[in-house]
Amino acid sequence: MKFRKAVRKDVPVIVQLLASDPLGQLREDYRDPLPGRYYDAFEQINRDNNQELIVVENENDEIIGTLQLSFIPYLTYQGGTRAQIEAVRIREDVRGQGIGQQLFEWAIRRARERHAHVLQLTTDKKRPDALRFYEKLGFTASHEGMKFHFDQE
Amino acid sequence: MKFRKAVRKDVPVIVQLLASDPLGQLREDYRDPLPGRYYDAFEQINRDNNQELIVVENENDEIIGTLQLSFIPYLTYQGGTRAQIEAVRIREDVRGQGIGQQLFEWAIRRARERHAHVLQLTTDKKRPDALRFYEKLGFTASHEGMKFHFDQE
Repeated sequence: MKFRKAVRKDVPVIVQLLASDPLGQLREDYRDPLPGRYYDAFEQINRDNNQELIVVENENDEIIGTLQLSFIPYLTYQGGTRAQIEAVRIREDVRGQGIGQQLFEWAIRRARERHAHVLQLTTDKKRPDALRFYEKLGFTASHEGMKFHFDQE
Repeated sequence: MKFRKAVRKDVPVIVQLLASDPLGQLREDYRDPLPGRYYDAFEQINRDNNQELIVVENENDEIIGTLQLSFIPYLTYQGGTRAQIEAVRIREDVRGQGIGQQLFEWAIRRARERHAHVLQLTTDKKRPDALRFYEKLGFTASHEGMKFHFDQE
């Protein structure tokens, strides 16, 4: 398995992954050619040194997983940096093989490497399996994750 | 009351606010002169167009509150932007006067203005009053807020 930063030509495959679950299907607009707004967003992510859109490849160079790691500078914690994970997806046919765990272990190492003092994420309360997965990795559900959606979703 | 982006000379007052509660006292290092790492963090925040460190001033131009608003670009939600709030503090002697509410209403407007599709934050489960405050504003505690601290804190 290989972990690397995504490049522009990966965008369709990543969006296909994002769209391939019940919630993602409602939110995304995966088609060929891919709507330009996905590329616009990719360019924003790509030119921002605090954003790392990561993909995992298998031995055939196929993208089988993704997550986005963000680094946010704050005055709090004596001017500390928080690392944050969002937009996690593992390809459906390779789930349950420990790929998610390796992807997270990679992300934890990367966050330490960039001197973050905390790595954080939120997980939907309707997904108890995900909660257990994150707890096993060392995350603590110490906070409420609060969302204010501006559109109907 | 006036809401504006913080400038470099505001940093000591902001750090004093951050340090002035039981948790902040343990985390921060507020003294005169202020340790340089706070200014380094400020410069990182200030040169990043996706970070808005906000202060509220009273009629005497005193800073009585702060929060940091971050905008994070993602491929998810068709290349949508998430807005996020962290590092909220209201000066102790002016709490309970609705200043926090006005600060949040300002932040909600700002997030909409920048076309975020969601505004999110996490709040410590040990603070039930804060949870109720956010729920009243329109936030939903739909997610677990998971943290992985790298240092002893």
